[in-house]
Amino acid sequence: MAKQIPYKIYLSEDEIPKQWYNLNAAMKQKHAPFLNPATLQPCTKDDLRPVFCDECVDQEMNMTDEYIDIPEEIRAFYKMYRPSPLVRAYVLEKELGTPAEIYYKFEGNNTSGSHKLNSAVAQAYYAKKQGLKSVTTETGAGQWGTALSMACAFYGLDLIVYMVKVSSEQKPHRKEVMRTYGATVIPSPSDTTEAGRKILAEFPGTGGSLGCAISEAVERAVKSDSCRYVLGSVLDHVLLHQSVIGLESKAALEKYGVQPDMIIGCVGGGSNYGGLIAPFMGDKIKGKNNIDFLGVEPASCPSLTRGKFVYDFCDSAKITPLAKMYTLGCGFMPAPNHAGGLRYHGMSPVVSELYHQGLMRATAVEQTKVFEAAELFARTEGILPAPESSHAIRAAIDEALKCKQTGEKKVILFGLTGTGYFDMTAYKQYNDGTMTDYIPTDADLERGFASIPDIPQNK
Amino acid sequence: MAKQIPYKIYLSEDEIPKQWYNLNAAMKQKHAPFLNPATLQPCTKDDLRPVFCDECVDQEMNMTDEYIDIPEEIRAFYKMYRPSPLVRAYVLEKELGTPAEIYYKFEGNNTSGSHKLNSAVAQAYYAKKQGLKSVTTETGAGQWGTALSMACAFYGLDLIVYMVKVSSEQKPHRKEVMRTYGATVIPSPSDTTEAGRKILAEFPGTGGSLGCAISEAVERAVKSDSCRYVLGSVLDHVLLHQSVIGLESKAALEKYGVQPDMIIGCVGGGSNYGGLIAPFMGDKIKGKNNIDFLGVEPASCPSLTRGKFVYDFCDSAKITPLAKMYTLGCGFMPAPNHAGGLRYHGMSPVVSELYHQGLMRATAVEQTKVFEAAELFARTEGILPAPESSHAIRAAIDEALKCKQTGEKKVILFGLTGTGYFDMTAYKQYNDGTMTDYIPTDADLERGFASIPDIPQNK
Repeated sequence: MAKQIPYKIYLSEDEIPKQWYNLNAAMKQKHAPFLNPATLQPCTKDDLRPVFCDECVDQEMNMTDEYIDIPEEIRAFYKMYRPSPLVRAYVLEKELGTPAEIYYKFEGNNTSGSHKLNSAVAQAYYAKKQGLKSVTTETGAGQWGTALSMACAFYGLDLIVYMVKVSSEQKPHRKEVMRTYGATVIPSPSDTTEAGRKILAEFPGTGGSLGCAISEAVERAVKSDSCRYVLGSVLDHVLLHQSVIGLESKAALEKYGVQPDMIIGCVGGGSNYGGLIAPFMGDKIKGKNNIDFLGVEPASCPSLTRGKFVYDFCDSAKITPLAKMYTLGCGFMPAPNHAGGLRYHGMSPVVSELYHQGLMRATAVEQTKVFEAAELFARTEGILPAPESSHAIRAAIDEALKCKQTGEKKVILFGLTGTGYFDMTAYKQYNDGTMTDYIPTDADLERGFASIPDIPQNK
Repeated sequence: MAKQIPYKIYLSEDEIPKQWYNLNAAMKQKHAPFLNPATLQPCTKDDLRPVFCDECVDQEMNMTDEYIDIPEEIRAFYKMYRPSPLVRAYVLEKELGTPAEIYYKFEGNNTSGSHKLNSAVAQAYYAKKQGLKSVTTETGAGQWGTALSMACAFYGLDLIVYMVKVSSEQKPHRKEVMRTYGATVIPSPSDTTEAGRKILAEFPGTGGSLGCAISEAVERAVKSDSCRYVLGSVLDHVLLHQSVIGLESKAALEKYGVQPDMIIGCVGGGSNYGGLIAPFMGDKIKGKNNIDFLGVEPASCPSLTRGKFVYDFCDSAKITPLAKMYTLGCGFMPAPNHAGGLRYHGMSPVVSELYHQGLMRATAVEQTKVFEAAELFARTEGILPAPESSHAIRAAIDEALKCKQTGEKKVILFGLTGTGYFDMTAYKQYNDGTMTDYIPTDADLERGFASIPDIPQNK
């Protein structure tokens, strides 16, 4: 008889993975290389080293090693908040009356409130090990900035966070968490960089943008030998660090002999979903499973379901390397009514390539439906989910309801990336009934596509 | 050789206690009975039944059963967020350079953000079981209201929360969490009760007080047969439910053969500390240990260290039964610069009696020192603590530093009751260097003592 599955499956600290899983190594067709925007040639490690830590550059370019050791110092930090629980959603299942089994991997039980800490720890550790004194980054909603603040406090690194000005005004509490961890938070645009001063001169009073904050953070980093820039999503080495989510999930499920039929996650830049699916997808590529992978994006920012698979800039200021990815155009801006994250114009090249090869599906969901699911989840499972994570909840509920109709006993695993404690303004809109949906028209999308650089696309 | 102690000791779900621990049964000298304010005679169960659920009244009056069964339905809810981790503070110990071993029981990993959920679940369950349709309560900072909202959503009870008006304006996010769980949140004073209307007529524009919110919640509850009032601290049945904290801590420590020398916790109404120490204190009374128990209160609201041990009202509106307790006088108001909870004028009768009998010690700490400790804890242990919990952190750090001087290898356990995500306004004051301390003068205390009712005190 199968073992009774508890509400929460906790692994022991010894079971925290000793190696990350590098999905690139398993992929038969690798994603196209990043291009140097000046030469349009594939980026070399030397192109990236002035910007990123050496070890991260090596990991970014590693297409061959399927497993990469996690240094003991990083595992020691992981032990402070990992393994994260894999939860059986017994109460939600009962509420839905579904024959499906629903599991979620909950990454929100740490002070950063999300999975972002998994990569922040690794990147801060490598920066410290390289002898750097400080790192810079940008943050929008603030989850990534918070995670990196915690990691930098732990390893004794100075951190400068360029926070989109309008966000720093709307989310003063996020800013204070970062300051409590010792980070210097600068509303962007600022007068501390050339990029910032230029924007301020052109648009006095602007609320800033993620593109501008990236420009400021990168400029600040490359001007100092003892400083580097760190990024919280999109790139391969970030997905690599996030594979700890998938590896723990797989180990926990295997302990109870459970094999998922579907794996669902929200996709913005792709780091959480890329990390959650990594080892399962590696097995699928090797023919060891036939899991149905489903990425969920907001209908208001539908890069996979309505974007183009082309080379584009990673930032709206057009200063980064070019990446081959599903994109809405680096000039695309989600509508102002869009809540939470998942507002990136592009998508991780790894996730883009998986989608392009048909190894995973994608769906787009509307905001009010997402918050409906969030509310139901909060009331049944007791966790107030982040708006981002709630996209996955929506899809998981929909799939479970399909099972109710068909009678299928599917095993559904989804990623619950974080908590919504700093997103109560959006919840208030939902509670007040004033939340609205927005689906870009084809004309809206065309305006975004017009910002895609006009370069030969068949590299 | 002793087993290596992990960062976090998790019990399994099967190890969640099946019975609460009723410290009253173990106490040789029981605390004095509650008095009916009209008759000044000991309260009977019949006095309390119109206000509280029957089962809670029975538990409140139970001085004989050392163990009381936890219904399976409550354990099912507990399984959604318990057992909570017992954490070895390896990183903090190293940072302090202390030979002491520091452990903390972390109750903040649930959406209510604190231990309050442990009793909210129980009280909501008993209300539902009794056939009630709704419950009322008051909330100040919002932790208790949030916990009760979650519990009522789960068991399908309507909930009306009277939230101190100034708090509901200063903490709109807490209010939205409660609304997301389906609670009706009414800023108090309101025009929904006679008590509220009276206050509004006398003091138009008042920001309200906890005393007034209690009056409104009780009035609303007693006017309906299908409604009762529930309270989040002070009372014996609340401490009983919170004993799950101490029972789990004891089981986790015993697993590794660890015996605490000291147990530290913050004390406001006393529910968290009373719950944490319950089974350990029971053993001390039986001569099975000689643990040094230390309650920590704010210097600005020092009921144990500077209060009087007399009969006083539990609320400032003077409508509740009288309790024999350490009190600053039911008219005492902490200074406006005081951050967070722990602002109650009195103290749980059980905790008061323990202190009076010399079974525990108490100390008072100043606010800026508390936030200093909170910051250090956040940066080392990675958890952003609630201001309340940080009082215990302060004392634990001070004790560990004493051990550094003496070379003693004390084992220190403290209660980390919750997280500070909704307290960032206070953290901002600390980060900005604008936080101040306040210690009431003897004259300030005398003004509070003047509000203690003039009744014969030797019941």
